[in-house]
Amino acid sequence: MFSTVAVDGEVRRWEELHLRDFAQGFFFGAGFFTTFRIEAGEPWFLARHLARLRASLAAFPGAVRTPPSEHLAKAAVREAIERCLRADAAMGPAFRGVGKLSASDGRVLLTFREHAPDLERMHREGRALDSQEPGAYRRGEPTLNHKGLAYFRQFSVMERLPLLGNEAGEVCELPTANVFFQCGGVLVTPPLSAPCLPGIIREVLLEAGHVGTLPIVERPVSFAQLAQVSACVFTNSAQVATGVPSLLGRPLPTSLALAQGIRSLVEAVAARER
Amino acid sequence: MFSTVAVDGEVRRWEELHLRDFAQGFFFGAGFFTTFRIEAGEPWFLARHLARLRASLAAFPGAVRTPPSEHLAKAAVREAIERCLRADAAMGPAFRGVGKLSASDGRVLLTFREHAPDLERMHREGRALDSQEPGAYRRGEPTLNHKGLAYFRQFSVMERLPLLGNEAGEVCELPTANVFFQCGGVLVTPPLSAPCLPGIIREVLLEAGHVGTLPIVERPVSFAQLAQVSACVFTNSAQVATGVPSLLGRPLPTSLALAQGIRSLVEAVAARER
Repeated sequence: MFSTVAVDGEVRRWEELHLRDFAQGFFFGAGFFTTFRIEAGEPWFLARHLARLRASLAAFPGAVRTPPSEHLAKAAVREAIERCLRADAAMGPAFRGVGKLSASDGRVLLTFREHAPDLERMHREGRALDSQEPGAYRRGEPTLNHKGLAYFRQFSVMERLPLLGNEAGEVCELPTANVFFQCGGVLVTPPLSAPCLPGIIREVLLEAGHVGTLPIVERPVSFAQLAQVSACVFTNSAQVATGVPSLLGRPLPTSLALAQGIRSLVEAVAARER
Repeated sequence: MFSTVAVDGEVRRWEELHLRDFAQGFFFGAGFFTTFRIEAGEPWFLARHLARLRASLAAFPGAVRTPPSEHLAKAAVREAIERCLRADAAMGPAFRGVGKLSASDGRVLLTFREHAPDLERMHREGRALDSQEPGAYRRGEPTLNHKGLAYFRQFSVMERLPLLGNEAGEVCELPTANVFFQCGGVLVTPPLSAPCLPGIIREVLLEAGHVGTLPIVERPVSFAQLAQVSACVFTNSAQVATGVPSLLGRPLPTSLALAQGIRSLVEAVAARER
């Protein structure tokens, strides 16, 4: 993580921030965050990330102290990002990496990190998914529709990257990504009620409605159906789309081309929404 | 919360602690905590609280940076408590209130707070339970057996205090307490697999085996069975035992006497274990 951060839009040094100002986030996980890609100094889908963050804060009004709305406005956050990039020679105005907004205790904390080399490699080469936790989630569990600071359930299995499912034998998500499966002539992703995070890339793809000639739809996917899947991709805002060359031991060589097609689509939408 | 705290046994000021030193706890809820009663400067069941905290850290070795074991030894923590109480005139060596140990990022943070007046009143007068979330938890979900900094699921409903249940229609716990029901001549509490937190007072009661002539047993309790319950008490380390004079709209007047009996039992065990 870079030392230059912003709190409520004001440029600060990470090592000078006090725990006291983020106490409810620390002690209770009472806060929300969002992570977004930055290319050439430009945050991708910032308006969408802020809308989701505001929606999560609005969903738990008593439990999380909401920051003043001006610190969650797109123009203000853009300006804070630019100020931080200019202030830090290690980043600079053409920075490429990941930004993160964390909202707790009535404050908005903006931080930055580089793309991890292993994630960059994953981006190019894909990543096999060999692990599963079929009954990890409960269908309809509402907190899983929000990216909360109480992130330990996901964080604790992030390295193993299991496919997380619900009690009905349906796939939900990965610890830090939404999943898409090519199956029966369509690209399918589980519904939010699975539950899964309403990921920004997921939202962009569902709005686009298709990638190439392949329709994109939201519907339940059972673990049993995975034997029929011909390609698999997972998406998140930092890495956009990652191909899965092997799913639970079964090779899926066309996943990498599908991930490439999704990345091109998302890149074009990101350019339009700047 | 009092301004005097300790980090790894060293007395510090809360307002001087840096977020950087607790970053994984803040960003990911990657840490565990435990909350214990202090009477006349004496922490209750400290050895048990430390054993549970160590067990939680051992259960997630890759995901939480474990503090050096000497900072989780009973003698060291006792000494840190004494040093803090002596250092702060607002507490003093005869302090009565609540201590908390939070372990994350390889550190142990010790903090103190007073008993909240409304919790003290609850302690005397009981508290009605009128709310329920029957399918909130999944049976066997392992993270719920640990008191984690990713506490938002519980924190977000703490004021409403619903009876949380699992997908099988069984009662699990309250957001911040274990539950005991008098039913069919025994006092029943749900098993850890419900899931529920392995609460220290719960553990003390199960080891005691009975309160007065009433046997205490661990077994599943369905929401349907609650209509047959004749008394209800919930337990946690800060308030010990609270009677429930009304459960989902049904008066249970003997709950307060049962809570009183449990408090006396626990107090006697606490005195022996000092």
